[in-house]
Amino acid sequence: MKDAIVLLSGGLDSATVLYMALESGYRCRCLIFDYGQRHRKEIARARKIAKKAGCAYRVIKLPFPWRASALLDKKADLPSGRSAGDMAGGIPSTYVPLRNTIFLSMASGWAEAIGAEAVFIGANAVDFSGYPDCRGAYFEAFDRLLEKGSKIGAEGRPIKIKAPLLEMKKSEIIASGAALKVPYELTWSCYKGAKAPCGECDACVLREKGFREAGLEDPIMGRRDDKS
Amino acid sequence: MKDAIVLLSGGLDSATVLYMALESGYRCRCLIFDYGQRHRKEIARARKIAKKAGCAYRVIKLPFPWRASALLDKKADLPSGRSAGDMAGGIPSTYVPLRNTIFLSMASGWAEAIGAEAVFIGANAVDFSGYPDCRGAYFEAFDRLLEKGSKIGAEGRPIKIKAPLLEMKKSEIIASGAALKVPYELTWSCYKGAKAPCGECDACVLREKGFREAGLEDPIMGRRDDKS
Repeated sequence: MKDAIVLLSGGLDSATVLYMALESGYRCRCLIFDYGQRHRKEIARARKIAKKAGCAYRVIKLPFPWRASALLDKKADLPSGRSAGDMAGGIPSTYVPLRNTIFLSMASGWAEAIGAEAVFIGANAVDFSGYPDCRGAYFEAFDRLLEKGSKIGAEGRPIKIKAPLLEMKKSEIIASGAALKVPYELTWSCYKGAKAPCGECDACVLREKGFREAGLEDPIMGRRDDKS
Repeated sequence: MKDAIVLLSGGLDSATVLYMALESGYRCRCLIFDYGQRHRKEIARARKIAKKAGCAYRVIKLPFPWRASALLDKKADLPSGRSAGDMAGGIPSTYVPLRNTIFLSMASGWAEAIGAEAVFIGANAVDFSGYPDCRGAYFEAFDRLLEKGSKIGAEGRPIKIKAPLLEMKKSEIIASGAALKVPYELTWSCYKGAKAPCGECDACVLREKGFREAGLEDPIMGRRDDKS
């Protein structure tokens, strides 16, 4: 049995990646971070997704010592009311310094400790092209780091970072996930933590466009969530 | 004023690095990790060192989701009773998977968030030559990662990782630090958290040898510590 660590956020990308990893024959452990997000709904959703998939998971409390991101600062404005086309280019205010590096480091450490051979991440370079840590060159640099800076890397068996969604459009991600029966009804994308998705923030706009282009109905659209 | 983040462990290497960074004109913020070490004495010492140096500091609680290291597992035997020569080569049981990568990621994220230009780490490749994440090639790979995976890297101003002790012998580190008036009486090296250093673990043996070869007296030798 091949083992993998899967970074799970509660959003639809990482949920899809989990099901892709399971489909590829990995036994998956999920790593969920409680890092001071604006709302806790996505953590609750990530737990539910891991349970639904029958996977072990850990929630790590990781308070960043800074607030330099609209995702962490409750007083900052979140990008909203834009079309998907407006989101391309530039680094968004939701960029969290070194977030993927921190998450991948922890996941790779866990992978090394248990002898897992891969770490999966739901990074995507298409929709938000501005995130520096969601590009192929970044993941290549991370692979190189693991070759040099880990025990199993030094032994010639480095952990592989897998970002299968990197070059996929949101509609392609959703179509692939639907075929794998990803429980999209459990995923949460909205930047806000209200009972229903706001429908206007960048994350809601991209999700709506993705389901529409995939020709599928979003199971959470129009539904209120009074539990998580 | 140039800003830097300094990783501080409570040991003598990182304390020396802090004073080197201050000497080089950096305004330093110290980052201390509470990651499930066997004893809490080194965290208390790191706080004292930061205060003594007049630097702001943050202690981050970061429980690793694994116990694959003698430094984390209270039931594991710690390397002890060896001469310094026996310690060369091989990866020690005190290796913590990806520890430096995780620490440097957090420190670099903080550095990016506040606009600091450097992160200092007290890594050393001489005494424990087996740690994969204490080698020049590893730090080069980390620099490359920061070029590719951070906002300021993408803008052409990547954070620099500085490991000034990398190629220094313990006696050279101590001699340099003594000249900078590093408060070695506040530092703690012993793997055990007893009131006095055990004198037999690898860390004690290297410390004793370092002070002896530097021709200096270790201010903590033979002293009991009933406070921290």
